[in-house]
Order: sequence, then structure tokens, then C-alpha cells
Amino acid sequence: MRFSNRIQKMNYSSIRKLVPYATEAKKRGIHVYHLNIGQPDIETPSTFIEAVKEFNEPVLKYAQSQGLDNTINSFRKYYKEWDIDFDYDELLITAGGSEAISLAFMAIADVGDEIIIPEPFYANYNGFAQVTGVNVVPFLTTAENGFHLPKKEEIVKKINNKTKAIMISNPGNPTGVVYTKEEIRMLADIAKENDIYLISDEVYREFVYGDDKYTSALYMEDALDRVILIDSISKRYSACGARIGLVASKNKDLIKQILKICQARLCVPTIEQLAAANLINTPKEYFDKVKKEYEKRRNVMYEKLCKIPNIVCEKPNGAFYIMAKLPIDDGEKFTKFMLCDFNHNGKTVMVAPAEGFYSTAGLGKNEVRLSYCLNCDDISNAMDILALGIEEYNKLNK
Amino acid sequence: MRFSNRIQKMNYSSIRKLVPYATEAKKRGIHVYHLNIGQPDIETPSTFIEAVKEFNEPVLKYAQSQGLDNTINSFRKYYKEWDIDFDYDELLITAGGSEAISLAFMAIADVGDEIIIPEPFYANYNGFAQVTGVNVVPFLTTAENGFHLPKKEEIVKKINNKTKAIMISNPGNPTGVVYTKEEIRMLADIAKENDIYLISDEVYREFVYGDDKYTSALYMEDALDRVILIDSISKRYSACGARIGLVASKNKDLIKQILKICQARLCVPTIEQLAAANLINTPKEYFDKVKKEYEKRRNVMYEKLCKIPNIVCEKPNGAFYIMAKLPIDDGEKFTKFMLCDFNHNGKTVMVAPAEGFYSTAGLGKNEVRLSYCLNCDDISNAMDILALGIEEYNKLNK
Ligand SMILES: Cc1ncc(COP(=O)(O)O)c(C=O)c1O
Ligand SMILES: Cc1ncc(COP(=O)(O)O)c(C=O)c1O
Repeated sequence: MRFSNRIQKMNYSSIRKLVPYATEAKKRGIHVYHLNIGQPDIETPSTFIEAVKEFNEPVLKYAQSQGLDNTINSFRKYYKEWDIDFDYDELLITAGGSEAISLAFMAIADVGDEIIIPEPFYANYNGFAQVTGVNVVPFLTTAENGFHLPKKEEIVKKINNKTKAIMISNPGNPTGVVYTKEEIRMLADIAKENDIYLISDEVYREFVYGDDKYTSALYMEDALDRVILIDSISKRYSACGARIGLVASKNKDLIKQILKICQARLCVPTIEQLAAANLINTPKEYFDKVKKEYEKRRNVMYEKLCKIPNIVCEKPNGAFYIMAKLPIDDGEKFTKFMLCDFNHNGKTVMVAPAEGFYSTAGLGKNEVRLSYCLNCDDISNAMDILALGIEEYNKLNK
Repeated sequence: MRFSNRIQKMNYSSIRKLVPYATEAKKRGIHVYHLNIGQPDIETPSTFIEAVKEFNEPVLKYAQSQGLDNTINSFRKYYKEWDIDFDYDELLITAGGSEAISLAFMAIADVGDEIIIPEPFYANYNGFAQVTGVNVVPFLTTAENGFHLPKKEEIVKKINNKTKAIMISNPGNPTGVVYTKEEIRMLADIAKENDIYLISDEVYREFVYGDDKYTSALYMEDALDRVILIDSISKRYSACGARIGLVASKNKDLIKQILKICQARLCVPTIEQLAAANLINTPKEYFDKVKKEYEKRRNVMYEKLCKIPNIVCEKPNGAFYIMAKLPIDDGEKFTKFMLCDFNHNGKTVMVAPAEGFYSTAGLGKNEVRLSYCLNCDDISNAMDILALGIEEYNKLNK
């Protein structure tokens, strides 16, 4: 009697494993600024909660496996605003973007097949891959280059006959990168030329700052049969706890295949689906305000970061994360130091060591991810404390 | 560019595939009594919906991956009433019993490993097995024997070095069987003697009729390190659309392993968890009433069934299903006939052909599953129509 190899190979979340140190710090009366998590602090639109409270059926029944009509159609309407046309049978409502990713992996890859992903990447891609027996094959993007894509050759050389897809998060977690139209075009070309899928995780679509125009993988008209969209209301509407996402593709046969797994797991919660459906009625100003707020935060964080000597960090244009190469030896050691051995006037900062975002061992050791899910004043204070912490850490480490 | 082998091997739900015929019948003005689905018609307790309406946080945040404290502790309290003691770290809240089953499979079995299950069994066990690469190895139980377990030798001979678990649904879907204390004891012995797990799906625990006492696998004190419990509020509280279940085990290391997958998928919906937590405050009379109602329905259905000539069917003591061997050649053909070519005064019946509940090809061909999720009058009418339908079908089939 033992555990499966696949589960033994999995790691515990590298961020969550440091949480006990933060808890300890708080017990000692230290205020901890959490820059380590992607949990938005912005209010969930009232359209969601209003729909929740309106639920009035005597029996809380199973929904259809594909999703409720209302929810599917509300997403279709949302995509229309982005000039993306989805038919009814091209979307499946899922338990967050998370389930959508697992479903996509299971549908296109067998055990031992490969999916290539620019690294650093959202750490849980690894978890979904491990549990479905798929191998993630990374190709490198760097802080120096703002985490933009390398040359086509660099990507193509990772492809072999086991490769089933290339996968991106755009905008990127943890990098904040927003890929250019040329980059997305290149990925579509690679997918076509090598007959593989392009999985595009666009859960941060709404969060693009400055003058950058967002390019969805779904704008690549000639590659639509191979584009698999991962999406979610978690970040877009600050509704992480709703667990509503979707997997979508213009490849109807693929969606039909995935529906089989959805039928086995029956359905996604009815009330949350109804509430998610009503999000389409959120006034447009909500997004404008939210976007402006995040942009301001990014600016504050980035400007403060730039003042730290010997930091490497390009200004990211999307999501709510900044990846930075710090002048330290080890991100995990540093994070522990900040939580256990440092405070400035009773305050400290928790960051996310970046190693967990790399699948190549040894990479990202001196990098951390900072999320700007705090108000500007807190971010400003947190960055001052971070700078002091780095100084102190390096002094002690000499 | 193709689909994975694992997804191509999966089947669409054998019940859902007949639904279009029911839809067509309704379009022709025919009333269809649905005896084909396990969707309770009983009201969801108001404790659930009240908690939903009380939700009042400005931001709908991610919950912990293990589940909310409230929800976990509420389940612990519930199990206490059944004389089952769970520590806090022995339960993980899941997206219904469905996710709990997948998690258990992934945690204990690798691709190619085997799980033995008495057949007929809940059809989606097959789906979860296919998608996780696990092989279901069935052993036969029969209508003639009320779907009770065969002799120990019959079960043990299915075990080899790839066998990781024996799995049951108790009470059984689709059979309604309630295993005796001796049967559960035997399964625990088999698990111990062969060093495998015992996965016990007890989502119908509440639905046991007559004088039978329910024996949870968790009553086998000497085997608790190898018992994995699958549970859900779907049937117990008529809350299928909530998608709240759990996987639990006194084997804390196992739960810790499964937590890794839970961390990757982040969490289960916050609002539904809060509402599920409040179900513990449902007055005990709710269950008493519900149980009495189902028992009455079972009696009506069973008595009417027995009057059909040449039927084979033992009175089941649990869940809300009856499996019957009908005097027909083919359950699927018969179901289609009832929906497409038959009605009695504008009414007909939809049943679930039983082949989908068997994994051995050819078995269950003349069996159907009838669920009693309708009120007694409707059941009574439906059974009369079923009897007439069988007569007519066989006349035309001569
Ligand atoms: C890039 C990316 N994809 C997917 C997800 C999954 O989010 P959810 O399951 O809440 O939709 C996240 C969450 O942080 C993410 O950062
Ligand atoms: C035996 C059995 N187990 C598990 C489930 C899964 O139910 P849920 O995911 O709604 O908890 C069902 C649903 O019909 C069932 O019959």
C-alpha cells in the first residue's frame, strides 16, 4: 500500500510552504505586507452578489455538464466585445481556469507527451502536468529581455514528435509580460508548421497597461482550429472564490471530446454560474477604474524597484506581477529572512521566491515575484522595507 | 494534431445520449416520467440557501485549498453523529464526490494500475478511471442475488500486483444494495490481506430503509489506514448543484499527498462551502421525513415492478434506485421505443438502460435502472405505463 508515483513527484506549492513563517511573524506582532499572492483586493462587482442573492429555486439541481445556457451565452457576449465570435458549442464552463487547464492537457496529451512553455511560468502548470502525466518542456525568457519570447529557432528546437502544444499565459503570470502581435503571430506559425496546439491562458486579458494593444491568440484567424483558450472570472472580476472559468476552442470536435470528461464530473456549481452570467451586466466603468488603479500601482512599484541598486527588471505591461532579479543570492532564503529575522518599525514584506516558476533546476534563484494587489501607499511602504531588507540581508550575508 | 488516446477511449454518458429522444417526445406533447436520473426532487434544506444569502464579503476570495475551516469542522461534526471521528487534517473539501473520486484514483494508482469494483457500478467510475489511466477490473454481482457480494474467492482472484484498491458504492448506485456488516468486514479483510486500499463511496449513506443497519467502511477499526471515504452533500441534502463533497481518510499521509493536487487547482467555491457548512444546522426531522418519503416510493415502485411478469428484481434497501431484469431483449432499444414509438394516454417513461453500468461487454443488456426521484403517484402511473410498454414492445418484437 503506497502512493502513486505521479503524486509523489508533485511538489507542495512553493509559495504556500512559506506561509507558516508569515503566520509566525504576525503572531509576534509584525505587520506583513503580502506581495506574494495573486489574490486581488479589488471589490467583486455587485452584479455577482446580487445574482447570488436572487437564487430562488426550491431544489439546487445539477446543471448541464457543458454549463448553464445563461453562463455560456454571457461569455459569448463578453468575447464579442473583444471581437471574438464563439458558437454555443465552442465553450465549456469549468471550475476556474484551473480545471480548464487540466481538461486541455488530458484532451490533447497522453502520458509522456510534451507541452512546451516559456519559463518562468505559472507554477501550477507543473502540477497539472504532473498529475496528468504530461511533461512540461520549458524554453527560457529572461528579466533582461522583459520576458519576451526568444527567436523562433529557440522555440522550435524544443519540438519533437511527442510535443502536443505550446502554451502561454498572456499577459503573463509571473512575468507581467504582454506579448506583441508579432509574438502571437510567431506562436501561431509555430503551431501550424509543427501541427501542434496553441494553449492560450488569457485570464489576465483585462489587465494591460499603457499603450500596448492586447493580442488574443484568437485573433490568429488561420490557426483557430488549434487554439485552445483558457479563461476565468477570478482575476477579471476579482471573483477568485467563485471558481468559474472556461475552456473554449473554434475546434468543435475538441470541445466535444472534452465534454466527455465534463460529463463524468457532472457539472459546475449552479449558483456561481448564475452569478457569473450576470457579470456581463457590470458597468464598463468598473474595468476602467480597476485598470487605472492597477496601472498606478504598477508604476509605484516599478519606480521604487528601480531605485534598488543592482536590480534587473523591465517594466511589465500586464497582469499584476513584477518579476525582479534582486542583488541577493537566494530568493527563498531571503524571503525567510524577511519573515523571520527582519522588520522595519514592526513591518515586513512577504515576496514569492521565483524558483517555483521555473522548471529548469537552478534557474530563478535570485529572482522574486512581487504582486501589486495592495493599495499604492502600502506598496510604497512595502518597497521601502524591501530595499532596507535587501541591504540588511546582504550585510549579514557578507 | 489529434486528441489524446485517453480521451478518445472515453464514452459519452450512456444515459445522456438518449436525452434527445425524450426532448423530441416532449415536443410532440408527450409527458415523460423521468426514472432515468438520480436528481432528487426533494427540497434543498433552507439552511443552505440562508447561508448563501448571508454572504457579505466585499471581495470573493480564494478559500484554502483544503477547504474552509467552517466547512471541514461542520463535516467532522456530522461524522461524529455516525460515530466516526475525523481529525481536522483528515478531510479535504472537493468539487462534489466526483472530484473526490478522481483525487483518490490519482493518489493511489499510476497509469496501468487496477482498481477492482463490483459490477454493475456507477458509470462515471469508468470515466474517472479512463482519464487517469487506471483500469477498472469488475467482479460480478447479480439481480438474482440482490447485488450482494460474491464469495471472497471470487473477489480475491481478481487481485494481482497491479491492484491498488477495491472500491464500492454503499448504498449502491445503480443497485440500491446496502452491504451487510459481514460484507464490509470481508472487504476490509481483503484489503488488509492484499495490502490494498478500500475506497468507500458513501454518498447515499443517509438513504437506508427498513431495519437494515448501515455499516460504514470506517467502522472497520483495524483497517482505517487503508479506507478512503468519498462523500458528498449532493444526495444527502438534495444539493447536487452545490458541488461540495470530500475525500477523507484516517491515513493522514495520504490526505497530505492529495492536498498537493488540491493546491494546484486552488480551491472549491467559497460561498457554496459556507452554505454547505451551515447544513449541519438542518433539523434532524428533515432526514426523517426525506427517508420516509423515499422508502414509501421504493415500496410503491417495487410492488408494481413485482407484478410485471418475468421480471427479476430483489427489493433493494438503499439509495433511490432499483435495477431490474426486464423480459425484453435490449434495454437501450426498449428505452428508445418507449420514447419514440410508445405512449399511453399521452404519457411515457424514460428509464436508464443498464449496459452503461457494466464494464464487461454484453452484460446488463436486458436490465434497466429505475430511480424513484418522483412522488408516489407519478411512480405508480409510470410503472403502469412501463408494464404496458413492455407488453407492447414484445408484441411488436415477435
Ligand atoms: C496564469 C494563470 N492561469 C490560471 C490561473 C487559475 O485561476 P483560476 O482557477 O482561479 O481561474 C491563475 C491563477 O492564479 C493564473 O495566474
Ligand atoms: C455513487 C455515486 N458516487 C458519486 C457521485 C457523484 O456525485 P457528486 O459529484 O454530485 O457528489 C454520484 C452521483 O450520482 C453517485 O451516484
